Amino acid sequence: MASPGSGFWPFGAEEGSAAAESPGTDLLPACDGEAATLSFLQDVVDILLQYVVKSFDRSTKVIDFHYPNELLQEYNWELAEQPQTLEEILLNCRTTLKYAIKTGHPRYFNQLSTGLDMVGLAADWLTSAANTNIKSNSVLLWTPGGAISNMYAMLIARFKMFPEVKEKGMAAIPRLVAFTSEHSHFSVKKGAAALGIGTDSVILIRCDERGKMIPSDLERRILEAKQKGFVPFLVSATAGTTVYGAFDPLIAIADICKKYKIWMHVDGAWGGGLLMSRKHKWKLNGVERANSVTWNPHKMMGVPLQCSALLVREEGLMQSCNQMHASYLFQQDKHYDLSYDTGDKALQCGRHVDVFKLWLMWRAKGTTGFEAQIDKCLELAEYLYNKIKNREGYEMVFDGKPQHTNVCFWYIPPSLRSMEDNEERMSRLMKVSSIPCMLCTEQ
Amino acid sequence: MASPGSGFWPFGAEEGSAAAESPGTDLLPACDGEAATLSFLQDVVDILLQYVVKSFDRSTKVIDFHYPNELLQEYNWELAEQPQTLEEILLNCRTTLKYAIKTGHPRYFNQLSTGLDMVGLAADWLTSAANTNIKSNSVLLWTPGGAISNMYAMLIARFKMFPEVKEKGMAAIPRLVAFTSEHSHFSVKKGAAALGIGTDSVILIRCDERGKMIPSDLERRILEAKQKGFVPFLVSATAGTTVYGAFDPLIAIADICKKYKIWMHVDGAWGGGLLMSRKHKWKLNGVERANSVTWNPHKMMGVPLQCSALLVREEGLMQSCNQMHASYLFQQDKHYDLSYDTGDKALQCGRHVDVFKLWLMWRAKGTTGFEAQIDKCLELAEYLYNKIKNREGYEMVFDGKPQHTNVCFWYIPPSLRSMEDNEERMSRLMKVSSIPCMLCTEQ
Repeated sequence: MASPGSGFWPFGAEEGSAAAESPGTDLLPACDGEAATLSFLQDVVDILLQYVVKSFDRSTKVIDFHYPNELLQEYNWELAEQPQTLEEILLNCRTTLKYAIKTGHPRYFNQLSTGLDMVGLAADWLTSAANTNIKSNSVLLWTPGGAISNMYAMLIARFKMFPEVKEKGMAAIPRLVAFTSEHSHFSVKKGAAALGIGTDSVILIRCDERGKMIPSDLERRILEAKQKGFVPFLVSATAGTTVYGAFDPLIAIADICKKYKIWMHVDGAWGGGLLMSRKHKWKLNGVERANSVTWNPHKMMGVPLQCSALLVREEGLMQSCNQMHASYLFQQDKHYDLSYDTGDKALQCGRHVDVFKLWLMWRAKGTTGFEAQIDKCLELAEYLYNKIKNREGYEMVFDGKPQHTNVCFWYIPPSLRSMEDNEERMSRLMKVSSIPCMLCTEQ
Repeated sequence: MASPGSGFWPFGAEEGSAAAESPGTDLLPACDGEAATLSFLQDVVDILLQYVVKSFDRSTKVIDFHYPNELLQEYNWELAEQPQTLEEILLNCRTTLKYAIKTGHPRYFNQLSTGLDMVGLAADWLTSAANTNIKSNSVLLWTPGGAISNMYAMLIARFKMFPEVKEKGMAAIPRLVAFTSEHSHFSVKKGAAALGIGTDSVILIRCDERGKMIPSDLERRILEAKQKGFVPFLVSATAGTTVYGAFDPLIAIADICKKYKIWMHVDGAWGGGLLMSRKHKWKLNGVERANSVTWNPHKMMGVPLQCSALLVREEGLMQSCNQMHASYLFQQDKHYDLSYDTGDKALQCGRHVDVFKLWLMWRAKGTTGFEAQIDKCLELAEYLYNKIKNREGYEMVFDGKPQHTNVCFWYIPPSLRSMEDNEERMSRLMKVSSIPCMLCTEQ
C-alpha cells in the first residue's frame, strides 16, 4: 500500500492480498464506553495539551524543520495490511506534532493567520465529537473558504441576472464580464474559469498607489465593455487586499453598481474582521450596500481553520440558484421549521460544521473582545511601520500609515542602496524577496 | 447583536456601540501556557469524554429532541458585547452536546454514515490543535465533499477537451453534454449548473430495475447527442447510488467511453469503500479504467466528517486546470520538493486538513481492519434483507440480495395489503414514506 506522500492510484490490483483474515485486536470501534477507549482518548489529549503549552513558549522553535524525505526515512508512516498498536498510534501523534509548524507559537506568522485561540480549539474539538452536519439560515452560507465564497457570489449574481443559465448554460445567455481590481485575490479569476465565464472576461481595474481600485477606471471599463456588447454582471470589490491590505472605495463603487445595475460583491475575507472595531470599521463604509459579502473569521479574527461565510442580501436567492430538489435528502415533511436546513442552498452536500467555533469564541470574547484583539493588531502594525520607515536599508512600498495589518516594505541590500530607482534595481530587489510584504497580526 | 439562528445581516449600523472599552477578563489568548488554559481545556475534554462514553450506551436516547425555538427560549445563546465567563462557555458546551443528536450512538442511523471512530476523533482533535493548511500530491485532491469532487471532475474533464475554456469561457467552445444515470447523485446536475453547462445538458440514462445504468441506453443517447451537434465530454458512472446502493456496470461504460473518447468519471463517494474488501471489490471492476474517481472515506469507512477525495489519473491536469500563478501565495523558490504543495491545484485556497484522520485510522485498523468493518456492514445488510423479505406488511423494492448496505423496502399498511399494485396504491404508499429505503451500516 502506498504511503500518503507518494503516488497514490489504488485501483487495478484485482488479486486478493495476502493479509490474514483477522482484524486488529486493538480496534476501538464505537461500540461501548470501555476504559480502554477513555484511556486512549485521555492519552491523546495529554499529548495535545503538552503540544499546546509548548507552542506558547517563545524560547522553543517555531518549527523543527526536516525535509519531507528525511521524515519519510526516519519514521514508519506506511499504511499496512495489519493494524498498528494504539501505542504506535500515540507515537504517530507525538511525531506528527513534533515536526509540525507550531501555528500557535508567538513567533509564527502566516500571510493571513496566526495564533491558536483556546476557545476556538475547544469548540473545534466539540464539533469533531458531535460529528454532525451543518445547518444555517437563508442569507448566510458557511463555505469551505473565501475562494469558494467568492465563486458562490459570482454564481448567484449570474443566476440573478439570467436565471435560465441554470438549465440552459452559458450558451443561452449573452457574454458576461466581471470587474475586480488588479490587486484582488486570484479566486475571482479562478471562479470565472470554473463557472465557464472565462478568465478573459474578468476585467482588472487599475489601482492607486495604495492598492485601492480607482472608481473612474471602473466606470470607464464598464462603458467600454457595454459598447463591445458584453453584459457587466458583477463587480468584486476588495476590503483588505492580500498584499497591500488595501480597502477599495466601497461607496463610490456602490454608486457605480447602482447606476449600471450590476451586482456588488465585497470580498472581505481578509478585511471583514475590521467591522468588529468601532475605530476601524469606517474603512468598510459602503459594505452595507453590497449584494453579497465574503467574510473569513478564520483570518483576522483568529478562528481555527476553516471558518468562512458568504452573506447574500436577497433572501431565497441562494436556494433558487442551487436547489435540485433531492427529496430523499431534503425532506419537506419534517416536524420543525425548515428554514434551519441549508442543505439544498449549497453546492456541497454533507459538510463539516464550521460555525460553532466562531459562535463559542464570540460568546467567550464578546464583541468587545474581538474589537480589542483587532485594535491591538492594527496598533502593532502601526508600531512596525514606525520602526521600519526610517530604518537604514528599508524602504516602504507606499507612503502613509497602513490601513490594515499589512506592512509592506523592501529590504535594500547594501549593494543597491546608492543605485538609481529604475527597472534594473527593481528586478534585483525582487531577487532578494519576490514579495514586498510583511504582516503583523500577533495578538 | 443577532443570534446565529435569526436574520443576520450585520452591516449598516454606523454609529459606535455602547459597550465598555475593556476586553473580557477571562480571555485565553494564545500567549502563554498558563495553568488556566490547561485547566479550561481539560474541563472541555472531560465534558467531551463523558459525552462520548454516554453516546455508546444503548440504553440512552439517540436524541433528546427539542424544537429549536424551545432551546432558543430556554437557554442564553446570544452573542453579546461583553464576554461570558469560562464557566458559561463550559455550560454552552454541555448544553450543546445534551441536545445534539448522538451520531456515535449504536442506534443512530444516517443515510450515509454512522458511528464515531475513536482514532478518527483523536486525529481530528490533533488536526484542530495543529491548525495547519493541507498539502497533498498531484493526482489526489482532498475536497470539502463528494459534491465538490464531482464538480471538480466535470471541470477537469471539460478543460482536458477544451483547454481554451479557462480563458475564453463556454462562449468559445461547442455545446457540451454529460451523461449520468437517473439514479445518480444530484450533484452532477448541480455541478453542470454551476459550471455554466446547464442542467439540460446532463442527460439521464435509464437504469435497470436494480438501479444500474443501462449501457445500451448510454450509447444510444451519446449517438443521439452527437447527431444533434453536441459534444459528449463526460460520463459520470456511480459506484453505490444513494437510494438503491446500485453499482453501474463500469467495464461496459469504460468500453463506451473509450470508443467515443469521453472522460469517464466514477462517483464512488458511497460505494468506493468496498475497494477495501477482497470479497466485495469486484462490484467496482472497471474503476481502474476511469479518468477520475470520487471517494468519500467519511461515508462507508466511518472517518469523521469531512473527508472526501478526487483522484485524477492524468498527472498535472488538476494543476493546469486550476492554477492562477499567485506568486505571493505559492512561491516556487522553496527549499523542498514542491510537489508536496497542492494550493494552486484547487479552487480553494486556505483549507482544513481532512486527510490526517483517514491516515491515522488506516494505521490503527490496517487495511484488514477496514475490510472487516466493511464486510461486517454488508453481512448486516444481508441479515436485514433476510429478516424483511418474507415479513408480513413489507415488500422489497427489488428482488435479490443487496449489493451495498442499502436495503430498500416499502412498509404496506394493513389497508393497502389486499389492494392491487397500481398507481393509486403507490401514491398512497408514498404518503407513508416518501422514500423506499433503510440503510444498515452499524458496526
